[in-house]
Amino acid sequence: MRISFIGSGNVSTHLCRGLYKANHQIIDIFSQDLKNANHLAKFVNANSINSFAKIDSSVDLFIICVPDIHIEFVSSQLPSQVAQIHTSGSTNLTALYVENRGVFYPLQTFSINKLIDFSTLPILLESSNDDLLKIMQLLVADLGSVEHHVNSEQRKKLHLAAVFACNFSNLMSNIAEDILLENNLDPKLLIPLLEETTNKLKEMSAYDAQTGPAIRGDMNTIGKHQQLIDETSTSSIRKIYDLLTKEILSKHGKL
Amino acid sequence: MRISFIGSGNVSTHLCRGLYKANHQIIDIFSQDLKNANHLAKFVNANSINSFAKIDSSVDLFIICVPDIHIEFVSSQLPSQVAQIHTSGSTNLTALYVENRGVFYPLQTFSINKLIDFSTLPILLESSNDDLLKIMQLLVADLGSVEHHVNSEQRKKLHLAAVFACNFSNLMSNIAEDILLENNLDPKLLIPLLEETTNKLKEMSAYDAQTGPAIRGDMNTIGKHQQLIDETSTSSIRKIYDLLTKEILSKHGKL
Repeated sequence: MRISFIGSGNVSTHLCRGLYKANHQIIDIFSQDLKNANHLAKFVNANSINSFAKIDSSVDLFIICVPDIHIEFVSSQLPSQVAQIHTSGSTNLTALYVENRGVFYPLQTFSINKLIDFSTLPILLESSNDDLLKIMQLLVADLGSVEHHVNSEQRKKLHLAAVFACNFSNLMSNIAEDILLENNLDPKLLIPLLEETTNKLKEMSAYDAQTGPAIRGDMNTIGKHQQLIDETSTSSIRKIYDLLTKEILSKHGKL
Repeated sequence: MRISFIGSGNVSTHLCRGLYKANHQIIDIFSQDLKNANHLAKFVNANSINSFAKIDSSVDLFIICVPDIHIEFVSSQLPSQVAQIHTSGSTNLTALYVENRGVFYPLQTFSINKLIDFSTLPILLESSNDDLLKIMQLLVADLGSVEHHVNSEQRKKLHLAAVFACNFSNLMSNIAEDILLENNLDPKLLIPLLEETTNKLKEMSAYDAQTGPAIRGDMNTIGKHQQLIDETSTSSIRKIYDLLTKEILSKHGKL
């Protein structure tokens, strides 16, 4: 297929390179910042543009990977005879201005310099019509990824869940990292613990996998932690510790 | 070595079985609840007891794996000529009543029915003397695990960090799981995301690995999430969302 990408951030970069490797032809990379577009375009042998007037309207598909708030505007500026899909978890299918429209949401955390394992990547599809759905299914297959079908409401819930499972979990690791660095300890010490925390969830629910002082109702250890935080960390860390401890106590009937 | 375990919970079970497999002789399993002691004792060919009067004082080592708050009392009840080690992250070496004492803290999350990969397990050692330290180093080697040396202050910080990295991360997965289940979606959909969230931390700091609406300063998506939570989740989930979002915004200079 002949595909153009609108946006040149993390998601665009990984999907664009993935589809290029799978022998799709990438035509235009559009970005407000031409330098970003250039950078990606070089890797996939595409044109980089920063003006909607210059966009090639003879392509088969536009893939829109821009911040959610810009999706509607960008969609309205594209040649309307071409199918459009966006890659946002929290944006309705109907945000796109064309009839022939779909959503192609990769449920993953993308960082620009970290390779993605497409073989395990769940891609959540929604489409206005079966023809476009089949095209998206082929793209998922070409990436070697795993297709799932959800509607806009379910996708929004999944996106919210992903913020907890990924973004907030990563914040927890960041806070842990800070504590180790402040005490001249190597943050990599925590890697086996982080891996096991995830591995357990392949075999049991997160509810059943919960461990730690809160689920044991161990108020003695919780008190020691609070004291330690008050001595060395900020008040926001104390607030986070207290709120999350309370949530575990409450979820597991210890309050 | 001839070793007795005090306590028969998660940590005791995994360590005891690991050392038994490595050809150490397990003599007594002590637990207040004889049924628990019996269960573990059967696997490692040991005696199960629930009275300190019955404990065999001819062993080489007592390994104390009881709730932190009971360590001091338990220690005071054991024959004082035998070396003692405890396995607690947040308890001082000096909580033990004997001179010949050590700490053997496995930095991992243990659930009773989930096998542990000893080969990647960091065990944090502290000892009152070099002879006992050498014995603990041998035990770590017998388990095939990885030894580290920390003092009581560092170990307490590590334990606090582990609560964030493991217990609170797991709570985040639990909240995500709840959201999926409420919407008839399979929680296993999140596994690749959880795995990648951890995998990234092998290559970059958690600070650099952060993704999501908060680090992008995407107040539009954050607003949508808040609305979604208000419609379907409890007020404590909203509080958690707001506090953690604010922490990411603040950490990354978006406030």
